[in-house]
Amino acid sequence: MFENEEKTNIESLGEFGLINHLTRQFNLNQKTTIKGVGDDTAVIDFQGKKTLVTTDLLLEGIHFDLSYTPFKHLGYKAIQVNLSDIYAMNGTAAQVTVSIGLSSKFTLEAIEELYEGIYLACEKYQVDLVGGDTSSSKQGLVISVTALGYADEKDIVYRNGAQEGDLIVVSGDLGGAYLGLQLLEREKLIYLENPNIQPDLEGKDYIIERQLKPEARRDIVQLLKDQGVKPTSMIDISDGLASELLHLCDQSNKGCNLYEEKIPIDPMTYETARQFNLDPTVCALSGGEDYELLFTVKQADYENLKNLVDISFIGYITEVAAGRNLITKTGTVHPLTAQGWNAFKNE
Amino acid sequence: MFENEEKTNIESLGEFGLINHLTRQFNLNQKTTIKGVGDDTAVIDFQGKKTLVTTDLLLEGIHFDLSYTPFKHLGYKAIQVNLSDIYAMNGTAAQVTVSIGLSSKFTLEAIEELYEGIYLACEKYQVDLVGGDTSSSKQGLVISVTALGYADEKDIVYRNGAQEGDLIVVSGDLGGAYLGLQLLEREKLIYLENPNIQPDLEGKDYIIERQLKPEARRDIVQLLKDQGVKPTSMIDISDGLASELLHLCDQSNKGCNLYEEKIPIDPMTYETARQFNLDPTVCALSGGEDYELLFTVKQADYENLKNLVDISFIGYITEVAAGRNLITKTGTVHPLTAQGWNAFKNE
Repeated sequence: MFENEEKTNIESLGEFGLINHLTRQFNLNQKTTIKGVGDDTAVIDFQGKKTLVTTDLLLEGIHFDLSYTPFKHLGYKAIQVNLSDIYAMNGTAAQVTVSIGLSSKFTLEAIEELYEGIYLACEKYQVDLVGGDTSSSKQGLVISVTALGYADEKDIVYRNGAQEGDLIVVSGDLGGAYLGLQLLEREKLIYLENPNIQPDLEGKDYIIERQLKPEARRDIVQLLKDQGVKPTSMIDISDGLASELLHLCDQSNKGCNLYEEKIPIDPMTYETARQFNLDPTVCALSGGEDYELLFTVKQADYENLKNLVDISFIGYITEVAAGRNLITKTGTVHPLTAQGWNAFKNE
Repeated sequence: MFENEEKTNIESLGEFGLINHLTRQFNLNQKTTIKGVGDDTAVIDFQGKKTLVTTDLLLEGIHFDLSYTPFKHLGYKAIQVNLSDIYAMNGTAAQVTVSIGLSSKFTLEAIEELYEGIYLACEKYQVDLVGGDTSSSKQGLVISVTALGYADEKDIVYRNGAQEGDLIVVSGDLGGAYLGLQLLEREKLIYLENPNIQPDLEGKDYIIERQLKPEARRDIVQLLKDQGVKPTSMIDISDGLASELLHLCDQSNKGCNLYEEKIPIDPMTYETARQFNLDPTVCALSGGEDYELLFTVKQADYENLKNLVDISFIGYITEVAAGRNLITKTGTVHPLTAQGWNAFKNE
């Protein structure tokens, strides 16, 4: 009965009423936003700077599992994964549009929580929600986010600028989001077998949060700016370190040497990998969803960056003929291969 | 067996392979596009002009029915409905991003046709595909399109600029898309009852095309420019004339007098409405999906526009206290009400 009442609430609000209800608390924080929601398009003034645009489609059962993903976290993450792409261009994120498809199983409260997460992400990162809509869906929850940002031409960092001898740098630590997912999936299976057993996620907050509530690394973009360093190439880590580094090498037509011992892995990530009989390095290389920034810098910039605590130097760029190599802790050399998350593996 | 082979093809291409395969024929036509697909974001240079952005989410079973919608038409329409919003701002459409979610029931050929329609729309309207992705979906087809465009600040037309005495103008004719849909729905029911009966759509090409393959009215934006006329307010007709005119009145805080006899209705639309025992005027007012432009102009612009063949003067703007009125052919006055398409009516 209760659920039916909620459904009626969503229906009785109608499309315009629902979107107005959900976005009523959103503010416009960006001076670049001339017109947000409410006309045929948003109108944005990037004042001669370049416009950056990226989009991501998140589908229930493919990109997220509502049995262990709180709606608020999901809304937050849907924004973060898009902002991360803007930061990976060395840009400033400024606006998002959010379109939602909802099947009738969702209550108004659930959708309010989703938008609460979207709101938190927008406020924290000072981006404006300027468009999108809600619609009913036959397919469960569908979330489509587009993010806009801007940058001066001279500041934009592409994937194709890595030069021989450049240092390979990564922010934060890797593999945590993947092991958070393994934990959540394990507890889901245990719960399905015996609903009386409570999930055992004690002490695992960090890696659970890495999976459910990633933070796009705006701070790293600012840090580099503060140090007067412009990366020669950059990408965000959505599919795993190996896959992203290969993208930088491919697009720059270069090789690389990546040192296993240099890859930053949090102790909790390491320990949890061992509990799952997984190689922590493989989790960092292929796990994905860490949303850290991977970039290359000139060797001359090393002095400016070496004392920063939240970045790691993990290797260097070589000529293309030297190949893409992983140098293991024991000193053996393996070709670097991508086993990143593949959107079709669920089919 | 054949379907299984196709599915294997899509899977074996993988996410990157599939999107590369589907977009291989796309060209970059816009000088504003600095970087299209292939980096973390697209990079666009609107050279000091304002950025316009709009997005639409299209879901199988809600926004389209694949039992009578050819994939090529669907791809074409998904682009048009977004471009229409850019033109409704009096802007130039320049880029689109397209994200697709596919369930395993779709063959590679079907998706190629979908992209063929997207390609045709992009080529015809000279917009660049600059981003998006493909992903698997648990159920059905999900299409999310975002369109970007630009305009000089002085040229942008919002919904809120209508002034008392302004003339209300609409392009093309109305109600056709809705009656095309009624025809397609009727033939679907007949087919489901008896699959041996062939669909009877003879002579109905125009309204079928209005539904399946709408054209955004870029030509009207150009025509107005050629005549030196800037509308005082503008909106595109996606939900029906009544709903859109009420939006202009609401946002401009004005009233209106709309004359039934002036509403442009194609003879085929009129005749088909009668066959369905529907009031042609109601179809024009509330049918939706015509993607014509509804706008207001100063009375002084009448002389510049009166001889144009593809626009109709259908009423005028009044002070807000005079209300929003429909003056029928018999001269009676009714309050104008919106019964536009509601995204939740399918729930």
